[in-house]
Amino acid sequence: MWQAKIFTLYPDFFPGPLNKGLYGKALTNKIWDLKVVNIREAAEDKHKTVDDTPFGGGSGMLLKADILAKSLDENKKDGERIFYLSPKGKKLDQKLALELSKEKSISLVCGHFEGVDERLLSTRNIEELSIGDFILSGGETAAFVVLDSVLRLLPGVLGNEHSKTDESFENGLLEYPQYTKPQIWEEKSVPEVLLSGDHNKIKDWRLSQSEAITRVRRPDLWKKYKKN
Amino acid sequence: MWQAKIFTLYPDFFPGPLNKGLYGKALTNKIWDLKVVNIREAAEDKHKTVDDTPFGGGSGMLLKADILAKSLDENKKDGERIFYLSPKGKKLDQKLALELSKEKSISLVCGHFEGVDERLLSTRNIEELSIGDFILSGGETAAFVVLDSVLRLLPGVLGNEHSKTDESFENGLLEYPQYTKPQIWEEKSVPEVLLSGDHNKIKDWRLSQSEAITRVRRPDLWKKYKKN
Repeated sequence: MWQAKIFTLYPDFFPGPLNKGLYGKALTNKIWDLKVVNIREAAEDKHKTVDDTPFGGGSGMLLKADILAKSLDENKKDGERIFYLSPKGKKLDQKLALELSKEKSISLVCGHFEGVDERLLSTRNIEELSIGDFILSGGETAAFVVLDSVLRLLPGVLGNEHSKTDESFENGLLEYPQYTKPQIWEEKSVPEVLLSGDHNKIKDWRLSQSEAITRVRRPDLWKKYKKN
Repeated sequence: MWQAKIFTLYPDFFPGPLNKGLYGKALTNKIWDLKVVNIREAAEDKHKTVDDTPFGGGSGMLLKADILAKSLDENKKDGERIFYLSPKGKKLDQKLALELSKEKSISLVCGHFEGVDERLLSTRNIEELSIGDFILSGGETAAFVVLDSVLRLLPGVLGNEHSKTDESFENGLLEYPQYTKPQIWEEKSVPEVLLSGDHNKIKDWRLSQSEAITRVRRPDLWKKYKKN
């Protein structure tokens, strides 16, 4: 059973959407398990303080290294990869999602306020993980995305009717356009080739569409694809 | 009042985390408003069918253009920007989040299954928006992220104690390391300069740290920063 552990100040955000649909079913079927750790439980004073002002000034509050370290030390497993969700981190991509789906468990630390004391990251072997070049109020919505990207790759989560291949990024290209019934809609017809029944021709057309879209929209991916 | 409209097959995912904490408070205070449209309500047959198989073969199902168009046409406002969340889209970044926070309203269309019939995108002036190079089960968790990135920028959502400037990406650089109490923790002290009280020196140190981290971790951002 694959396990996700979430360290958060907002434990009631979880499981949220992760307890519904296919992921909820997979949770019931023990394909995966979610453990939510409330960071605040590691606080030791009577006010349950978890944050403090930054040295050197600046607005906002930081999560204290001592509290977060205590929470992690009490709850992490040996050898487990721990990720701190942060816009400074390594970018999540499909390759990393696949890698994480092959771990036994992962821990995700959700920051809040201005971030965490840097000493926590350097002393606890924490990897910084970013889902993109934008700022969020905390790591929680990013954690939903990380888990969404990983859970669908766990064996048994998507039924056979769902495809996990031929999709954007799994061959280094963006996906080709797709069409379904009605065949003619608002005077627009589906491309002829898709009605031909000639599977090789369809495959070629889809690849050429994928290549064209990738070249125009994502020169960075296109460059990598051409290299391989 | 800023309005977000979500088109989804899973209306019960919402508001979810968006109804808690600061965003929940802002919702109550009518700083923003969330309208959730169940795409299935536009289905016309007795089974409420919303999807069908792709022309040309392949696994998975596609959202039908006619149903989704009907749902959009009945619920969208004139001139409103409509985004379809898709890994093929333009990448969300801090600049776009800021842009969206200045709109009056936006619509987010959450796909599911294999995607949507391409004709929908070309006939309804829909922009494709991606949060990153990974595949999700649907657009819902991505919608949480888009709204999280935008809501924190709406006037009145974050209190004065929260900083919206000096953060990663708002000056084109990753954020400098931050430290809070205790001053010495696990034998590691906070950098001397942050205790100096010399604000210019602190500012210089932070900028040089930001530059160093960006240069090492994100050559792409570093290149852009050096140009400006």
